[in-house]
Amino acid sequence: MLLMEQKILAEGKVLPGNILKVGSFLNQSIDTGFLREIGKEIAGLYDGCGVTKILTIEASGIAIAVAAGMELGVNVVFAKKHKSSNVDGQIYSSVVHSYSYNTDYHIVVSQDYLRPEDHVLLVDDFLANGKALEGLMDLVSQAGAHLVGVATAIEKGFQGGGDGLRARGVRVESLAIIESMGDGTITFRRQ
Amino acid sequence: MLLMEQKILAEGKVLPGNILKVGSFLNQSIDTGFLREIGKEIAGLYDGCGVTKILTIEASGIAIAVAAGMELGVNVVFAKKHKSSNVDGQIYSSVVHSYSYNTDYHIVVSQDYLRPEDHVLLVDDFLANGKALEGLMDLVSQAGAHLVGVATAIEKGFQGGGDGLRARGVRVESLAIIESMGDGTITFRRQ
Repeated sequence: MLLMEQKILAEGKVLPGNILKVGSFLNQSIDTGFLREIGKEIAGLYDGCGVTKILTIEASGIAIAVAAGMELGVNVVFAKKHKSSNVDGQIYSSVVHSYSYNTDYHIVVSQDYLRPEDHVLLVDDFLANGKALEGLMDLVSQAGAHLVGVATAIEKGFQGGGDGLRARGVRVESLAIIESMGDGTITFRRQ
Repeated sequence: MLLMEQKILAEGKVLPGNILKVGSFLNQSIDTGFLREIGKEIAGLYDGCGVTKILTIEASGIAIAVAAGMELGVNVVFAKKHKSSNVDGQIYSSVVHSYSYNTDYHIVVSQDYLRPEDHVLLVDDFLANGKALEGLMDLVSQAGAHLVGVATAIEKGFQGGGDGLRARGVRVESLAIIESMGDGTITFRRQ
């Protein structure tokens, strides 16, 4: 998605530690016109693939998931993050390691909202090492649902998570894939 | 909004402790078609009021804020929740007391994303005692921005937060106001 690459180049900030800050349009501050375009792009990629539900993780995945869900005409479910596994009710849960914070956290979704008959598209804002998506895939598997694929706004290709999932046969679509970044330059993978 | 009242009656669950569970369409699981209607309704209420930005709190406010922002054609900023005030950077922060969890938490927004020239609409899913909205109002005040009003999906009228804000001259619009609930019955305030 050329528009995503242009937006990253215009407004993204590369910080030490391979951090790309896109808070001005994608996290914390959300450009709703641009978000609508993201939703249409994701919907176009997965149009006709039988998606019945979108699954994401709170908080920064919600906006993109909602935009895609509106365009695909399907509902969105977001997994909640918890520090402990001590959550009441009938739930699916998985453990995700965060490299950013060097800690584990639990992601949790009610069994009411993820069903065996669901064909699930995973949506998130960033794809780096892919640990969060692997956690979501675990929830889909626990529910006995069908995984259609993954859609992310920005993939850090150099961290390998996306290609690891592709090597396992998972369809992964990222609107922009960053091959390398640093010293104020960002290089995208040609798709 | 008759549609909101009907949805609450059809899918909402009243739990002990004055808790209304709407996870099947508004939190955790989001009915995107219904969400779009919510966005249109909020946009209709504040059409022509000069709103330049929507401010909400992660996580469950994001979906509604995005839906309203898309319809009003303005960007959305969400305040982040932190357990401590130890947050780097140039930020506005405020302390909010959560009665649900009997604890205080900090809400934080970057000074980059809330500017003195902004005319801000606060959006959230629930309005009960109003403490979260008061925190957001504090952030707007710190930024020197102008508060246009508040829009919430569901107000628990019997907890008084909404009427307290109205008594202070704040415009508060809730798509459904619950006057009382319990024993499986929900009574709405006529608007």
